[in-house]
Amino acid sequence: MEIKVLKDILSANEQIAERNRQLLDSKSVFAVNLMSSPGAGKTSLILETIKMLKGKTRIGVIEGDVSSSLDAETIGKEGVPVIQINTGGGCHLDANMLSSALSNVPLQDIELLLIENVGNLICPAGFALGEHKKVLISSIPEGDDKPFKYPLMFHKADAVLINKIDLLPYLKFDTQSFSQAIRGINEKVEIFQISCATGQGIQEWLSWLLTQMSRR
Amino acid sequence: MEIKVLKDILSANEQIAERNRQLLDSKSVFAVNLMSSPGAGKTSLILETIKMLKGKTRIGVIEGDVSSSLDAETIGKEGVPVIQINTGGGCHLDANMLSSALSNVPLQDIELLLIENVGNLICPAGFALGEHKKVLISSIPEGDDKPFKYPLMFHKADAVLINKIDLLPYLKFDTQSFSQAIRGINEKVEIFQISCATGQGIQEWLSWLLTQMSRR
Repeated sequence: MEIKVLKDILSANEQIAERNRQLLDSKSVFAVNLMSSPGAGKTSLILETIKMLKGKTRIGVIEGDVSSSLDAETIGKEGVPVIQINTGGGCHLDANMLSSALSNVPLQDIELLLIENVGNLICPAGFALGEHKKVLISSIPEGDDKPFKYPLMFHKADAVLINKIDLLPYLKFDTQSFSQAIRGINEKVEIFQISCATGQGIQEWLSWLLTQMSRR
Repeated sequence: MEIKVLKDILSANEQIAERNRQLLDSKSVFAVNLMSSPGAGKTSLILETIKMLKGKTRIGVIEGDVSSSLDAETIGKEGVPVIQINTGGGCHLDANMLSSALSNVPLQDIELLLIENVGNLICPAGFALGEHKKVLISSIPEGDDKPFKYPLMFHKADAVLINKIDLLPYLKFDTQSFSQAIRGINEKVEIFQISCATGQGIQEWLSWLLTQMSRR
């Protein structure tokens, strides 16, 4: 009797993520999955990105939170389409949540979809959504030991933004050893030093983002 | 036929947590479950607490991390017994992990057990360990909207320590509305403003902690 060996079976989440990606591609929408600890600056980065790309790139936003719609309300004031996903206690977004949200986003009207994941350095790393790039925001006050403590998140990121760089004078943080630690886990990652408060490094982030979009 | 209705069945985790608590009580050890976002200051608070209570209270520490034993090594230098739990990807400690760790802690030699949970504002809130008190550290750079976004964690805490209060001059953070938001979710919570960097508020925290221990 021949024994069947099944290979490369995608998980249910990966199958749905793949369908999400196909839908996004069919509408020429580039999607970025933004992940970080609580309060590292995901919403601030989205706001900066919307302001700087106004009139240049049409943006839509999906906000993921355990509860509340505070961030979606703030972003909605910028005049871009925004959908809130409440996970109801869940510690990460998944592809099925994104699928539901996508049916409420006017995909034909946007080119860039920014997805703010739940604030958490662990669980979101394990769940593909169908995004084109994963971006991790890590902030100076969290400390420079985080790549050793949350390695999967740093391993999976296409880019790491070191945010709140304006607080460097007030805190112990070695940006060089932090960057080295990240590259030890993830050779190909792009690393940017930014401050959403002062605008430092935002142009470099946008330039990278637009280059990724154009290569799609 | 009579239908049996089973009530108040503890989950497996709660059963083990209850056994952990009984073991701790039998050894007169008071256990605190310290929870926070990554980098909010759990390890710094443990280090401050050990230094300030040296010669007064015998302390043991259990360190929970996804990976690495960086924090356990730092704390071990203070000459207190310390056990590292690596969750191997898991986003919180559970009662079974604590049970395994407790068998490696010299309970007869300590009065206070500080348990550092995994850095995460979501999952640890749902898992009792057998601790006597839950303490949440929330830091100024995370922003004052966190009680609305992670309500379960703020609801479950016996005390909230607002850490990095020395950074207030450099950041937007309304301590009054933050405290009000917490009390809206959790009437009985104690709130302290502290800085592990400057020592501000540490005496108040220790005073509360020692009072809780004496009431045990």
